[in-house]
Amino acid sequence: MASPLNPADQALADRLPPGVLRPVTPAYLEEPRARYQGQAGLVAAPRTTEEVAQIVRACGAARVGIVTRGGGTGLVAGQVMPDGPAPLVLSLERMTALRGIWPEENVLVAEAGMTLQAVRDAAEAQGRLFPLSLASQGTAAIGGCLSTNAGGVTALRYGTARALCLGVEAVLPDGSVVHDLKRLRKDNTGYDLRDLLIGAEGSLGIITAASLKLVLPPPNTGVAMLQVPSPEAALSLLALAERLMAGGVTAFELIGGEGLAFLAETLPEIRQPLPGAAWSVLIEVGLPQGLPADAALEELFEAALQQDLVTDGVIAQSGQQAATFWHLRENIPEANRRIGAVASHDISLPLSEIAGFIRDAGQALAARADVRVNCFGHLGDGNLHYNLFPAPGRHRAEYDDQRAALSLLVHEMAVARGGSFSAEHGVGRLKVAELERWGDPGRLQAMRAIKAALDPLGIMNPGAVLSQATG
Amino acid sequence: MASPLNPADQALADRLPPGVLRPVTPAYLEEPRARYQGQAGLVAAPRTTEEVAQIVRACGAARVGIVTRGGGTGLVAGQVMPDGPAPLVLSLERMTALRGIWPEENVLVAEAGMTLQAVRDAAEAQGRLFPLSLASQGTAAIGGCLSTNAGGVTALRYGTARALCLGVEAVLPDGSVVHDLKRLRKDNTGYDLRDLLIGAEGSLGIITAASLKLVLPPPNTGVAMLQVPSPEAALSLLALAERLMAGGVTAFELIGGEGLAFLAETLPEIRQPLPGAAWSVLIEVGLPQGLPADAALEELFEAALQQDLVTDGVIAQSGQQAATFWHLRENIPEANRRIGAVASHDISLPLSEIAGFIRDAGQALAARADVRVNCFGHLGDGNLHYNLFPAPGRHRAEYDDQRAALSLLVHEMAVARGGSFSAEHGVGRLKVAELERWGDPGRLQAMRAIKAALDPLGIMNPGAVLSQATG
Repeated sequence: MASPLNPADQALADRLPPGVLRPVTPAYLEEPRARYQGQAGLVAAPRTTEEVAQIVRACGAARVGIVTRGGGTGLVAGQVMPDGPAPLVLSLERMTALRGIWPEENVLVAEAGMTLQAVRDAAEAQGRLFPLSLASQGTAAIGGCLSTNAGGVTALRYGTARALCLGVEAVLPDGSVVHDLKRLRKDNTGYDLRDLLIGAEGSLGIITAASLKLVLPPPNTGVAMLQVPSPEAALSLLALAERLMAGGVTAFELIGGEGLAFLAETLPEIRQPLPGAAWSVLIEVGLPQGLPADAALEELFEAALQQDLVTDGVIAQSGQQAATFWHLRENIPEANRRIGAVASHDISLPLSEIAGFIRDAGQALAARADVRVNCFGHLGDGNLHYNLFPAPGRHRAEYDDQRAALSLLVHEMAVARGGSFSAEHGVGRLKVAELERWGDPGRLQAMRAIKAALDPLGIMNPGAVLSQATG
Repeated sequence: MASPLNPADQALADRLPPGVLRPVTPAYLEEPRARYQGQAGLVAAPRTTEEVAQIVRACGAARVGIVTRGGGTGLVAGQVMPDGPAPLVLSLERMTALRGIWPEENVLVAEAGMTLQAVRDAAEAQGRLFPLSLASQGTAAIGGCLSTNAGGVTALRYGTARALCLGVEAVLPDGSVVHDLKRLRKDNTGYDLRDLLIGAEGSLGIITAASLKLVLPPPNTGVAMLQVPSPEAALSLLALAERLMAGGVTAFELIGGEGLAFLAETLPEIRQPLPGAAWSVLIEVGLPQGLPADAALEELFEAALQQDLVTDGVIAQSGQQAATFWHLRENIPEANRRIGAVASHDISLPLSEIAGFIRDAGQALAARADVRVNCFGHLGDGNLHYNLFPAPGRHRAEYDDQRAALSLLVHEMAVARGGSFSAEHGVGRLKVAELERWGDPGRLQAMRAIKAALDPLGIMNPGAVLSQATG
């Protein structure tokens, strides 16, 4: 270690397994949106599940909080603890083994520190697909994907991370280990701890490994970008596609015109097949042998034209062209970053409420503030990234005093329609107040009871998901 | 009430909402296999969630256990309490409302007492499919299907009950109500109470309503029965079908020769398309527009023939013929009942362990006992119903002293291969000892902590899932 430890950290360090400590470097204390600055008394990078358990027991004895860190790509500050006594940051960077792969079972067992991309690559090497797909997959760890129940662009077909996990190995707050890396599709033997740990954002235990579902890649895949006259039309197009394709729609992404404008402004090298479209969708299908994807997309396009659901469209004629469509979609967040958001919202809505929400929220915001709205996202899941940007020529800092009120407005309008203030990013520390405000009281009470039962000392990611006064 | 209540029951009855009591009739105390005889001090049939909560609070105050009852079709005695102080049986028979259906969202909200068939019918009336399908669906309540995470024949494609539920309304052991009937595909706002209640078999709370996922029926469906030379070949055929069909395989059921023999003996009116087949499979596919199912099944059959994976087969030429194939499959349990099982096992195995298990278990049983094995089930899920029957001319009662040892042998051999002693039926009271024997200690400890936190008085289905001494 570069500098001497304070006595309390030194006492804890002496109880840790040998060789696990790492220097406390800035990389362990950051989150991508740079709103929170983390802190750490110690950083430990265990090599085995038993070392994780030893660290947890030592932290329990010392009453030191643990912030578990995978790839550090989370967007709600679950991976950084800015306030309170400095925690131990437990990094999973050394637990990156592929424990096994059973291609004939479509199962893979990965340690939690393996990146999502590495999991996908391991599956692909055996002719399989691990379908979870996120922009950050080169860095995001699979343990973090599970702890936050990550979503991404294929959840419409394959579900969120939760739906792709058969079982977990995890260390609980008392240092005990749950061994549940089953390779079974059905196992009704008691309470579903797996799904309790998935989405708990490290506040109930540390997922150290997971048994994951693989799928066979569909024989025929295709991608199209289709211009639609309105969000209503996009939803009707989705319904039409689902009716024709029998589960074959893999992704259905809504792209608002502001997103295309931001791309044109900040990343002009990205080719736009439908420049200026006020609303467009990117659709990917994966179909059986015997049904060419371009023919199926052509048929969809013709049927949609007849119903006035599309006004223009391009069907990718090659895998390369399909990749350029996806490249466009995946660079919208980067364009957003370059413009500089006033406020970002990861909301979900019942499908039949989406069009009304987009209309009403747009009007309400226009009446309140001089902002541009970039609304895009996973329409098939009802999941919108509804982000606000400065008017042309203005800077995000000029909106500092409006930001909270604008976010409250967006969240309130979503919740009033039966929606969620966090569709796929989680609660972390960013949305603890939102959960307390809009969470069902009965559900919150049960969450607090479970937290107190499993983590009576409150050492697991203190302050994440639930505020620390869990009485 | 027919007979006067004892003073304790009368005191509890006086605290219940007016009009909820029902006579304690035998129907409330039975389970389908008639191994357990239930008991009840009172039977209450609430009409609303608030009445459920009032009953739960009254039982808590009186320290009286609650056994919740839906359709009463469970196979592991979760719905009957034969020992200990007589419980209140809470029947959901009056909570059968369809609270709403949103076909454009593919969502339906049902009260827990609605039968699975009624849920399916409500979906069908709107051109939608609720894909959960069980032999007992005419009686089984949707609340029970969720509480036991029911599986059935379509789990391969659509998942078990858990995968078809978006949210629940539930009464917790303290009488508080969790309101979480969201119509959202994505909602990452805290711990997954929904999945904790699903599969908890009424021991953590009472599911009173659920928000359920619907799907659009596939445009082209088809069914075939295919004779296979071995379980290995059946698994290779499944892999081939999944490779070709891109998620289009809806069901893949293994049928052992003994099952066909039992059908021929006890239900000779059922037509058998492949009489005498030692192993056969029933496959159902649901495919997109543009891909006729019979053509796809024909192509599968030809490809499988070339790889020696099938030896004979019949593709249904009409919906009626498809129904007769399903009728055959669905009557295997009835034939089993008429023969009279020595012991039944609802096991699951990693797919690559199935063939070895069938071989080794068959040999081990043959060395131990003079029994016939009827092995059938949901092969696509790795879920076998591995049932033992008397040798011809013998009666099940002659095996009374062997039964426990034979079941232990089957379960041990499954668990040794990474399998489960309860794939889809649950734990109930029948398999509490098995869970204690083979359950992971870390997982059991966490389950007990959760039970104690949510149900400190131990009133929710006492003795189900976990033994009552929960430390």
